[in-house]
Amino acid sequence: MSFSEHPDCPAALALAEQLADVARRIARRYFRMSVEVARKADGTPVTLADRGIEEQMRALIRAAFPSHAIRGEEYPSEGSGELTWVLDPIDGTKSFISGYPLFGSLIALAEGSRAVLGVIEAPALEERWVGVEGRRTLFNGVPAQTSRCRDLARAILYTTTAETFEGAERTRFEALGARCALRRFGGDCYLFGMLASGHCDLVVEAKLKPHDFMALIPVIEGAGGRITDWHGAALDLSSDGRVIAAATEELWRESVEVLSAG
Amino acid sequence: MSFSEHPDCPAALALAEQLADVARRIARRYFRMSVEVARKADGTPVTLADRGIEEQMRALIRAAFPSHAIRGEEYPSEGSGELTWVLDPIDGTKSFISGYPLFGSLIALAEGSRAVLGVIEAPALEERWVGVEGRRTLFNGVPAQTSRCRDLARAILYTTTAETFEGAERTRFEALGARCALRRFGGDCYLFGMLASGHCDLVVEAKLKPHDFMALIPVIEGAGGRITDWHGAALDLSSDGRVIAAATEELWRESVEVLSAG
Repeated sequence: MSFSEHPDCPAALALAEQLADVARRIARRYFRMSVEVARKADGTPVTLADRGIEEQMRALIRAAFPSHAIRGEEYPSEGSGELTWVLDPIDGTKSFISGYPLFGSLIALAEGSRAVLGVIEAPALEERWVGVEGRRTLFNGVPAQTSRCRDLARAILYTTTAETFEGAERTRFEALGARCALRRFGGDCYLFGMLASGHCDLVVEAKLKPHDFMALIPVIEGAGGRITDWHGAALDLSSDGRVIAAATEELWRESVEVLSAG
Repeated sequence: MSFSEHPDCPAALALAEQLADVARRIARRYFRMSVEVARKADGTPVTLADRGIEEQMRALIRAAFPSHAIRGEEYPSEGSGELTWVLDPIDGTKSFISGYPLFGSLIALAEGSRAVLGVIEAPALEERWVGVEGRRTLFNGVPAQTSRCRDLARAILYTTTAETFEGAERTRFEALGARCALRRFGGDCYLFGMLASGHCDLVVEAKLKPHDFMALIPVIEGAGGRITDWHGAALDLSSDGRVIAAATEELWRESVEVLSAG
């Protein structure tokens, strides 16, 4: 049974939209407002916006579904059970703190370790992609469809920065890039929204955490694309963070061949 | 005498805004509409939007200032004289054709070979920076100011893609990047708007043509920043296309030292 037939689906979907509204409102309030930047233990930046959004999201989830578990980027995991909300209040915090409008907020619902609902919300652009297992992905309420590109030589490839890839990862990424029509940079989760809407054909990333990629899965799959790890295996809460998303089965197969070589 | 005191300044400024309105209208009509992409002799992409915008801009300039010269990206130069309009109908055509919202339209007016008026128009985001020699740069009608960052170690550096830099250029860019707090990618002319508004602190590019950089000069200088070539020399119609823009004099001096070394 796909999640679209689950009895909780309508309420979960309504909640997910409400969480995205929270992210849009708070992120827009702080964006380009010289918000103070703190450093987490791992050196990555965090702002009042990240924390404020995740706090409000958690409060809304607890109120609507007290039995659901929650894991997010900024606070410890809470609860346990079959259904888990996976939250990234600001994906692309480095963009956010430098006034770059292509950051997003990611909301996923996992059944077991499988993502069944995902939202990519882009507050600065007021754009939103909503994906549910078993349904067509919507972009601002309108059905989204990946491109029909089947040929690497015609493909537009995006990644946030090639600096993410180290050692053999870098070599494989460069090999893939060399075979594509265009290589472009910058954008974090927004790039996966662009892919779902048919604007670009491939997105490759590494070092993503579950809160960075779980929401992308229902969005990409519901738009007709494929998204897996670099070896072609399904993504779940225990994946290694290397992600390839492709507009078509053919493009995905060719890309996995290059990214998993050597 | 700065151009702000030139008798033609008010009419030139009104025309520049009108040209930016044309760019916004036409670019938004074609953006994400699967517009057909042709290849120019040098292999770079061009669309109906690029050509349509430049044609309408030229018609408006001819009507308002028949004595002014025009040079643009898509058509041969026309006219001669002390004042020349320098046009890039779509800066970031590769972004435009891949549905990436950070492309722009660039409008400059040069007196001799010196840029005295510049507009960065970002159609997808409905954002516009207007700079005039001798006046404060405006962002959507509100005064813009670069950041006060004076220290490379705290600076946020942007470039469109590191792949632009070849050989020694790449080495120097990497040396500068290694000293900055953050290196980020993607954005073309939009990055210079972000710099003028104080969101990032440094933008470095190479291989820019006069139509890519002339409009940036009055915008950056009127916001309190510095913009020159990599050796610290003023940019004009004959510059080599390597551009550094910095939020402050101190940051600019440190960056030029790194970029001109070796």
